[in-house]
Amino acid sequence: MVVILKNNIQQDKLDNFIQWLSDQGIEARPTKGLHTTILGLVGDTAKLDLDTIKAVSIVEDAIRIQEPYKNANRKFHPLDTVVQIGELKIGGGNFQVISGPCSVESEAQITEVADRVHKAGARLVRGGAFKPRTSPYAFQGLRAEGIELLHAARRKTGMPIVTEVMSASHLPLFEDVDVIQVGARNMQNFELLKELGKLRKPILLKRGLANTMEELLMSAEYIMAGGNMNVILCERGIRTFETATRNTLDISAVPMLKKLSHLPVVVDPSHAAGINWMVEPLSMAAIAAGADGLIIEVHNDPQHALSDGPQSLTPDQFDELMPKIKSMASFMGKKMAD
Amino acid sequence: MVVILKNNIQQDKLDNFIQWLSDQGIEARPTKGLHTTILGLVGDTAKLDLDTIKAVSIVEDAIRIQEPYKNANRKFHPLDTVVQIGELKIGGGNFQVISGPCSVESEAQITEVADRVHKAGARLVRGGAFKPRTSPYAFQGLRAEGIELLHAARRKTGMPIVTEVMSASHLPLFEDVDVIQVGARNMQNFELLKELGKLRKPILLKRGLANTMEELLMSAEYIMAGGNMNVILCERGIRTFETATRNTLDISAVPMLKKLSHLPVVVDPSHAAGINWMVEPLSMAAIAAGADGLIIEVHNDPQHALSDGPQSLTPDQFDELMPKIKSMASFMGKKMAD
Amino acid sequence: MVVILKNNIQQDKLDNFIQWLSDQGIEARPTKGLHTTILGLVGDTAKLDLDTIKAVSIVEDAIRIQEPYKNANRKFHPLDTVVQIGELKIGGGNFQVISGPCSVESEAQITEVADRVHKAGARLVRGGAFKPRTSPYAFQGLRAEGIELLHAARRKTGMPIVTEVMSASHLPLFEDVDVIQVGARNMQNFELLKELGKLRKPILLKRGLANTMEELLMSAEYIMAGGNMNVILCERGIRTFETATRNTLDISAVPMLKKLSHLPVVVDPSHAAGINWMVEPLSMAAIAAGADGLIIEVHNDPQHALSDGPQSLTPDQFDELMPKIKSMASFMGKKMAD
Amino acid sequence: MVVILKNNIQQDKLDNFIQWLSDQGIEARPTKGLHTTILGLVGDTAKLDLDTIKAVSIVEDAIRIQEPYKNANRKFHPLDTVVQIGELKIGGGNFQVISGPCSVESEAQITEVADRVHKAGARLVRGGAFKPRTSPYAFQGLRAEGIELLHAARRKTGMPIVTEVMSASHLPLFEDVDVIQVGARNMQNFELLKELGKLRKPILLKRGLANTMEELLMSAEYIMAGGNMNVILCERGIRTFETATRNTLDISAVPMLKKLSHLPVVVDPSHAAGINWMVEPLSMAAIAAGADGLIIEVHNDPQHALSDGPQSLTPDQFDELMPKIKSMASFMGKKMAD
Repeated sequence: MVVILKNNIQQDKLDNFIQWLSDQGIEARPTKGLHTTILGLVGDTAKLDLDTIKAVSIVEDAIRIQEPYKNANRKFHPLDTVVQIGELKIGGGNFQVISGPCSVESEAQITEVADRVHKAGARLVRGGAFKPRTSPYAFQGLRAEGIELLHAARRKTGMPIVTEVMSASHLPLFEDVDVIQVGARNMQNFELLKELGKLRKPILLKRGLANTMEELLMSAEYIMAGGNMNVILCERGIRTFETATRNTLDISAVPMLKKLSHLPVVVDPSHAAGINWMVEPLSMAAIAAGADGLIIEVHNDPQHALSDGPQSLTPDQFDELMPKIKSMASFMGKKMAD
Repeated sequence: MVVILKNNIQQDKLDNFIQWLSDQGIEARPTKGLHTTILGLVGDTAKLDLDTIKAVSIVEDAIRIQEPYKNANRKFHPLDTVVQIGELKIGGGNFQVISGPCSVESEAQITEVADRVHKAGARLVRGGAFKPRTSPYAFQGLRAEGIELLHAARRKTGMPIVTEVMSASHLPLFEDVDVIQVGARNMQNFELLKELGKLRKPILLKRGLANTMEELLMSAEYIMAGGNMNVILCERGIRTFETATRNTLDISAVPMLKKLSHLPVVVDPSHAAGINWMVEPLSMAAIAAGADGLIIEVHNDPQHALSDGPQSLTPDQFDELMPKIKSMASFMGKKMAD
Repeated sequence: MVVILKNNIQQDKLDNFIQWLSDQGIEARPTKGLHTTILGLVGDTAKLDLDTIKAVSIVEDAIRIQEPYKNANRKFHPLDTVVQIGELKIGGGNFQVISGPCSVESEAQITEVADRVHKAGARLVRGGAFKPRTSPYAFQGLRAEGIELLHAARRKTGMPIVTEVMSASHLPLFEDVDVIQVGARNMQNFELLKELGKLRKPILLKRGLANTMEELLMSAEYIMAGGNMNVILCERGIRTFETATRNTLDISAVPMLKKLSHLPVVVDPSHAAGINWMVEPLSMAAIAAGADGLIIEVHNDPQHALSDGPQSLTPDQFDELMPKIKSMASFMGKKMAD
Repeated sequence: MVVILKNNIQQDKLDNFIQWLSDQGIEARPTKGLHTTILGLVGDTAKLDLDTIKAVSIVEDAIRIQEPYKNANRKFHPLDTVVQIGELKIGGGNFQVISGPCSVESEAQITEVADRVHKAGARLVRGGAFKPRTSPYAFQGLRAEGIELLHAARRKTGMPIVTEVMSASHLPLFEDVDVIQVGARNMQNFELLKELGKLRKPILLKRGLANTMEELLMSAEYIMAGGNMNVILCERGIRTFETATRNTLDISAVPMLKKLSHLPVVVDPSHAAGINWMVEPLSMAAIAAGADGLIIEVHNDPQHALSDGPQSLTPDQFDELMPKIKSMASFMGKKMAD
């Protein structure tokens, strides 16, 4: 950490501050410039609170020069993490497509979609049982029943299931879920993250609409600090001034997150743009940028979808897309499950 | 709702769509333009899902022309809501200052700060018992003990207490809290909002960092749909490209929220800028823009604050600020509690 | 400037870099931490290019700890600049209202509006002769004729005129303009700024839609580096994700710009929100935050305005607003011209 | 265009408005809803000014449902535009790499870089002669001399040259430039765009940092309205809250711009991220998303680059990258010049 001191400070205040740092095992090494004096702090500065330092009366500013996350940091874990979901692997060169409808609506719907996407090459099935909806008057998901229906889809296809949790109090219902998803709106629901850290199940952690990559990694750190190292990061678009797309897919997040962290990174092109014809070009771009997987919404009847229709593909469209995905993943040297 | 149709669509598909709308009690009235045909939908369109309509194959786009919130909408409730907290009122011309430290740290700290801000003119005391912190390694609040200490502050000063809830499972600890705060990161924690809707306590709902005013009102609607009409909206800065301030205070949100809704609107200048010397000009601006109250952080020892130091005032600074606040509130025709 | 070095660098590369800095009169003082070595650079680092330093192969990052602007910096010019426009003053406690239509349309229009706003208390008249319009098919302004009509308005009311320049090649037409405005879209038209630096006329410099406060000050620096110290800064809203208002008025920019710089700061509430009923609350907020002036659009016939109608006030509405502005300016201790 | 009327309006005002529209050849077809009446406007609504309509006293809101650009609109020009630069083609399946240093610094530098990138497979050489720099104290480019040096590079390699114009008054110097670039900061310098519309040379138009895709297309429309149809669009990153990258590459802009318009779209991965190791993954993503070309910065001595070092590749790095670009372009079915 680098601390920039105000001009014309009293020596005794500086001495006090240096002593206070020293009491915490931090050595402060000053450099006097023409106008400004800076302190280089040496020691375990990760435990110092940046805001506390900035609040000291003689301090003009303080800048952290090391990342505040440890478990998620590639510097300390150079090798790619491979998350294991049953026999499936994701990360470390293993690429997977997760697919299914936005919401689970009925057994017929979820098993049919699961069957179709499985035949096309998806290897995990997703579907929302608990749905975060902006309006209290909109369909909120089938909840417990939705999870039961996902089990039916798993029985039919053999695919592991991925579904979103919205509250720690619902976790008992997720005992037999294979991958628990944390949605963008809950990325900083820290109480929920702590509970997920106690599990050993894979967690699919979606980036919040207005959260930086560092914040995403800090939320992963919450889960990992509890001992659960099976975190999959997901880029799904950020909120910007542009309105032609629902969100702006931050494609740079793929290589950057993989540089900063050893965790697998998947991309959700369906939610990023919110437009079904854009799923193909964004999927291609995501793989080309180095993604370890994709989450693609498929619905068997978009006209009557109870949520999020415009971004869904039909099973027929998905059938056309998958060969292109496989071909691009192969071109980029990725392995897909058979 | 206005539906814009694609060009060159088949008549039978259009007939089907109009029939499907009719089945739901909605009449579609077409207008043919040179290039485009639009449908004006007549009926209770609030129950239609915008995304479902957009997903229909013959639809190019659909635009909602009425607000999707009802209970929070000034059109249906023209008079200002006055939220009652014990004998205090907020809204409808009544202005209040809520003050206290970011985190509750000790009985001495919270009672001393409460005493000082009460003497200066604050009429509600705030302090964080549960703290949402980006880092799992940072201080997470005294939790249950922090709420006990707030009770001690209330006993000493008589001021109602305001504190943040981070999970529905903690709500039993909040039974004797006067105003429950929902933080920016939980503004779309819909499961929590639903639980708060079952209470009849005042809820202070902070706008999320990247949430629109409409989304804030929809989150208020979640609480109100449960029957709890005692919602206070709080503008606390949004996330933009500007880095000179921590967030960008959206001052326009004050008049706009008060135009769209009848609920009281307070401003948090401490978190908006994240800089203690800016609390004064932003407080003045907020009152001038029509705010019904302010939330101002005060700490008795910023150097040793366990969280969020740089934005806090000292009690002495607060003593200097309050007369200016009172004078500006009076200038704007607001009543403050004695 | 602080330079953070990569880990495990070769000593000879470090020696070369330190020598290269030394050749430019900069001394590098190293501080070795546990994981990282930093260099504190001492000397006139303003002339170092940050990107050049970052490009050095052994450098991880470099951080400038002093502002890159000099003439505009309050550290070097502690007293408020008072810009003189004929007998009028702006800044240093002097507050002015600049008013008029978005576009100059006819002599009758501009003289009538000028007369009305002058009677209500505005002391400078504005009107667009050259209009930056998003569409090539929209009205582009009366251009040279528009400036002539502004002269007519000045003759009738005695008010100095403010109008926008869009190209350095048009400057000969601005010889008899009192204040030259640089619009948001041209804030970083550096060739234009250099030409304005050669004049000694007051320049009203609007902040770009996506420009930081530091960039605004650097654009002011371009003008001042040429010797023209008469720069008035203008906050007019920034582009964010929020769509309820056309732009987001960054009210914090008022106190922050005045802290960083000695230049006067005015606010344009008409363009910030793009909604005429919001001009009043945003004007009040701007004055309360410390602004030195306001630019308010007034049009005598909003229905037939050739540009930017929805944000304009009628002369009658302006008559109602001005007493509130005068009262708030007086409350904040500002002087207005008689 | 759809016009939403206010509630409870007077019939005579509505009649007047409908008559005023009729006078302009626009028919207004009303649809009465439960709470709201809308007017569907039929006729050539492109000439109506949206803001003028919104300013009408009985109007609540107005929404344009057709794109405001014509020449750039794919609806009216379904086939891809192929821009011809000498014998080179870009667009319509033809893919080109434009490469060279950020700034032209010396004959040795620009000819050596041009020679290296030409050998590696670039077919156009770029280099800045006029440099838009945030600071007036930074290197501003060699200007006229820089253009001379680009001619030398063209003589040596046979490659057409691409360089940026910053002011219409400099255009005489660009007579022998093959492609004129408009930088992000000048995307809405409408006076410059009009002058470029008078030429018949290809124009490379970069998207502004905070400009929407529609605004980019409107700026292209300015050039095309003058008769110059040779416009190449360039996505180079937008400004968002994320700070891990300098800008956020809006990868969705590639397929969206190609859907909305027939113009070729190239991507600048060097400026988008501002980080040299990210040029490769972002280049791959851009091609996969459908881009028609790339602009990649290459510098022969990044340590001593006079501008924008951290984003440049060395010629050796470019040699390694080009086979990957060629391979991906071929995978996506694009033709590159020999």
